[in-house]
Amino acid sequence: MNAPEGLTELVSAGNVLFLIWGAVLIFSMHAGFAFLEAGSVRKKNVVNALTKIPTDWAVSTLVYFFVGFPLAYGITFLGSATGMLEDRSYDLAHFFFLLCFAAVIPAIISGGIAERMKFLPHVIGGAVLVATAYPLFEGLVWGRFNVLGADDGWLAGAFGAGFHDYAGSVVVHAMGGWLALPVIIMVGARMGRYLDGESRPVAIHSVPFVALGSWFLMVGWFGFNVASAATLPKISGLVAANSLMAMGGGLLAAMLVSRRDSVFVYNGALAGLVAVCAGSDIMHPVSALVVGAVAGVIFVKGFLWANEKLRIDDVLGVWPLHGICGAWGGVAAGIFGLESLGGLGGVSFLSQLAGTVACIVIALVISTVVYGLLKVTVGLRLSPGEEMLGSDLTIHAGKAYPEELI
Amino acid sequence: MNAPEGLTELVSAGNVLFLIWGAVLIFSMHAGFAFLEAGSVRKKNVVNALTKIPTDWAVSTLVYFFVGFPLAYGITFLGSATGMLEDRSYDLAHFFFLLCFAAVIPAIISGGIAERMKFLPHVIGGAVLVATAYPLFEGLVWGRFNVLGADDGWLAGAFGAGFHDYAGSVVVHAMGGWLALPVIIMVGARMGRYLDGESRPVAIHSVPFVALGSWFLMVGWFGFNVASAATLPKISGLVAANSLMAMGGGLLAAMLVSRRDSVFVYNGALAGLVAVCAGSDIMHPVSALVVGAVAGVIFVKGFLWANEKLRIDDVLGVWPLHGICGAWGGVAAGIFGLESLGGLGGVSFLSQLAGTVACIVIALVISTVVYGLLKVTVGLRLSPGEEMLGSDLTIHAGKAYPEELI
Amino acid sequence: MNAPEGLTELVSAGNVLFLIWGAVLIFSMHAGFAFLEAGSVRKKNVVNALTKIPTDWAVSTLVYFFVGFPLAYGITFLGSATGMLEDRSYDLAHFFFLLCFAAVIPAIISGGIAERMKFLPHVIGGAVLVATAYPLFEGLVWGRFNVLGADDGWLAGAFGAGFHDYAGSVVVHAMGGWLALPVIIMVGARMGRYLDGESRPVAIHSVPFVALGSWFLMVGWFGFNVASAATLPKISGLVAANSLMAMGGGLLAAMLVSRRDSVFVYNGALAGLVAVCAGSDIMHPVSALVVGAVAGVIFVKGFLWANEKLRIDDVLGVWPLHGICGAWGGVAAGIFGLESLGGLGGVSFLSQLAGTVACIVIALVISTVVYGLLKVTVGLRLSPGEEMLGSDLTIHAGKAYPEELI
Repeated sequence: MNAPEGLTELVSAGNVLFLIWGAVLIFSMHAGFAFLEAGSVRKKNVVNALTKIPTDWAVSTLVYFFVGFPLAYGITFLGSATGMLEDRSYDLAHFFFLLCFAAVIPAIISGGIAERMKFLPHVIGGAVLVATAYPLFEGLVWGRFNVLGADDGWLAGAFGAGFHDYAGSVVVHAMGGWLALPVIIMVGARMGRYLDGESRPVAIHSVPFVALGSWFLMVGWFGFNVASAATLPKISGLVAANSLMAMGGGLLAAMLVSRRDSVFVYNGALAGLVAVCAGSDIMHPVSALVVGAVAGVIFVKGFLWANEKLRIDDVLGVWPLHGICGAWGGVAAGIFGLESLGGLGGVSFLSQLAGTVACIVIALVISTVVYGLLKVTVGLRLSPGEEMLGSDLTIHAGKAYPEELI
Repeated sequence: MNAPEGLTELVSAGNVLFLIWGAVLIFSMHAGFAFLEAGSVRKKNVVNALTKIPTDWAVSTLVYFFVGFPLAYGITFLGSATGMLEDRSYDLAHFFFLLCFAAVIPAIISGGIAERMKFLPHVIGGAVLVATAYPLFEGLVWGRFNVLGADDGWLAGAFGAGFHDYAGSVVVHAMGGWLALPVIIMVGARMGRYLDGESRPVAIHSVPFVALGSWFLMVGWFGFNVASAATLPKISGLVAANSLMAMGGGLLAAMLVSRRDSVFVYNGALAGLVAVCAGSDIMHPVSALVVGAVAGVIFVKGFLWANEKLRIDDVLGVWPLHGICGAWGGVAAGIFGLESLGGLGGVSFLSQLAGTVACIVIALVISTVVYGLLKVTVGLRLSPGEEMLGSDLTIHAGKAYPEELI
Repeated sequence: MNAPEGLTELVSAGNVLFLIWGAVLIFSMHAGFAFLEAGSVRKKNVVNALTKIPTDWAVSTLVYFFVGFPLAYGITFLGSATGMLEDRSYDLAHFFFLLCFAAVIPAIISGGIAERMKFLPHVIGGAVLVATAYPLFEGLVWGRFNVLGADDGWLAGAFGAGFHDYAGSVVVHAMGGWLALPVIIMVGARMGRYLDGESRPVAIHSVPFVALGSWFLMVGWFGFNVASAATLPKISGLVAANSLMAMGGGLLAAMLVSRRDSVFVYNGALAGLVAVCAGSDIMHPVSALVVGAVAGVIFVKGFLWANEKLRIDDVLGVWPLHGICGAWGGVAAGIFGLESLGGLGGVSFLSQLAGTVACIVIALVISTVVYGLLKVTVGLRLSPGEEMLGSDLTIHAGKAYPEELI
């Protein structure tokens, strides 16, 4: 009988298309990271922003192919020829999809250390993290070391349910944000950012570029969340609706607490999306709205607290955006995912808390070691003269608008 | 036997993917609305354009979730937890898809009243329309009050076939364009636009932003039209081909009548796409070419007529583009959809005319009431000083290129 | 029994969705061509770049619908109504997909002849090539004249395997690049480009636009390569992974040989993608990395060689990018596709070489004839005064940033 056989093939093909559809959307988010940073720096550092992101992507591709993905999932693509190539269609599509997550790590860090860091240590640092910290925690939650997320893992044994992170609030965003924090502190604030005891915010290059970057991120995010189902039959309209509600809640909350500041408005939408990833499959849409709105407020207040009070010069606010809102998302899945709060259940608040804390600890330790070593070897920071001239001229020997110089 | 069961599941999953694929494309069109407006205004109003569109989107998400979608289709997402969440995957994806249509309404209006309207009445007006006028007419054509579109509805009884609007030439575009007209008139022309009896066109900020916005719209439009099949088995290559032909016809016709004016060229393509929505499933590709070309001419001539002769200061030409070309599309489906003209038939010219006129009447009445009330309560317009300073500084306390001010 | 019947319908629908998904992605690449050129010219030619690309797209739509596609595949869409429209859903989707390839031809040429060519001969030339050279060679490799690619064609008879070009390294890119070369030479270098025996590179308008264009191209490319499977059950994760590896290799190699020049970095990624198209279905990912890296080096060195040594004023480097890297991709499929080099086999080095050379010969001959005739009839080049003033003002009666003139 042919029907079931043809059906099996079609399901397989559908799964590959589903993952590649999602992966392409997430890949387009990297255009978003590039323009978000290009808009948020000064004109003399625009080319650097636009070059770091695709470079990090290319390096991540190689590192995750040869090291990260094999580490997290125990699957390699290095065997001999034909057989492997034919049987690994889904695995290769899955690699593409998960690479898009992994490559978010250096993209997040890039936004924090913008305008004063050297190119090489940035690229090396990102490569090392995509080979170590990221796939390690990924493997603990989703992959072959699955002792945090699994139904029979440590956390499930301790608290009744494993750590739940559907689309990466913690695995991707909190990891990226907390990996960024040590290097942002180590590399130090930009020249003149805090001068004579005063905080002196730096005027940014282009709100339209911030908006453009945000749109790429908002649109691509639906690949992130929806395709995290991993196979087509598990696709969930609820995940899409929850993403919408959290994005809307984050945007509107950020608008209200920032008095219609456009950069906060866009970042508020992103904050809502960061926070909804973890529990987007198990929350009620109204809960997603609340989770997103809280994230929007966290971002605005967190950005001002970190950059003005703590005087951490986090240019794009990647620690509040990805680090804090990601952690909030991990914990929130343990609240609003509960059946008693209208969720689908199967989740434990303490497991969510434990998994999120584990991520933060791993991130802080590994980042401190990696960037500490880079600082004492190649050095992290441009010279004062180079920083003043701008990284575009000193690193890339070019400016963003060459014709203007004539 | 398992095969049919697995097949049913796969069809369900395929339908959800199909709708979300389309919805994500249409969501990206909102980036297009944002940049089309940002390019078409002056530099002092760019941030406002870029902020209104995502804000309208977020507000539309909430309004359409809680009011609009339930009103049009009788489906709510507010019941208790688990069961509903599990069974509503398709409905939630359908909500996402249809939200993308609904949110076009304030995006259209935004382009007409740009550069001089207050923020709050714009946002409130859009919210009210997404809760009332839009889902009312949507419900009359596609939803639970279906007396216009249905085979056994009023128009089918009167003229032999119901009102046919495959992808929203009338339900979305004509509705948006005719809702915009009263408020454009009520809010009045920009300061200096018609001075000393002369029409003085305002030099726009950026043709590249107009182009960028148009590309987002042109690309995303294929989600609009193709995914209007609503379920995957009904997907139609003809719809895609007709969209192509109408877009090309509109672009080339606008080019010929505007002497290669780039802004008209891009808007001509959009005019063709607006007009083809209604009949894209039932026309021959050659007919779609004609419908699109006529729309391209209508837009160029209509824009000049409205803005220069009638002195309606419709900044982006949203009334000719969406209002008039949308109405043309509704009527054209009743001409080129006829079997005698190479179409698939099942359509009536008089029903198309009646449905289109009904839309225009509803839009004009509700818009006049809503914005009339807003005018006498909160007021519609910035003060002359605020308008002169620009809405970026007065509403958002920021400029598009902050670094430039240093 | 219903199951197989429903399955057949679902496979058909899935194929149409698959092709349209890919086609929409490739259509978005045309936004990329527009911004890549808009960023790489001077401010006075930005509008022209942004107008040529969509105009070429619209003209290609008509020409390929009425002439090119019927020529290459023997399928027309002009029969009478209903039956044809209902049965041709896949063919119409396939037309959309292949149109996206065909329309790349004038987009490639546009980047070579930028800043000094007249509008009309550019549009006419592109139209003629989309009607002749492109579908002719397409028909020889993929279509109804399939004597190069087929298993029982000339090359298979001569060398044991037909010419293999999975996604168009040769059929699309080499064809476009070698069609461009004669007209770039015929139209001559821009005024002042080589003055007093010196090469004087022209400062470009905007690196952010180059980056934006490149992102559209890189993202859309996955539609190009992945959907070249043509039917959903043949979708291959390997193709996606190989595209990733070649893109990464091209980017990193270009970075290393260009010292982090951002424009070269982005173009290096594109060079890798051009080269991987032909063999992306039969190479090992590590081979794809090598093929891409070689292409990245070829582009940087080839661009400098052509523009500085040969003094061919190829503004965007379309001949090295599409012409040479495309030819390299055609040949590389005959090397790295071999089983002995870890590939899937079924490919012949000599067939690849012969097919690639055939493409180059056809392109050079037809382009020389077409543009030679245009040169002696309507003329190719703007007058010196027009060129100095810029094509935006002379052709489109407008500037890119109208507000700046006030």
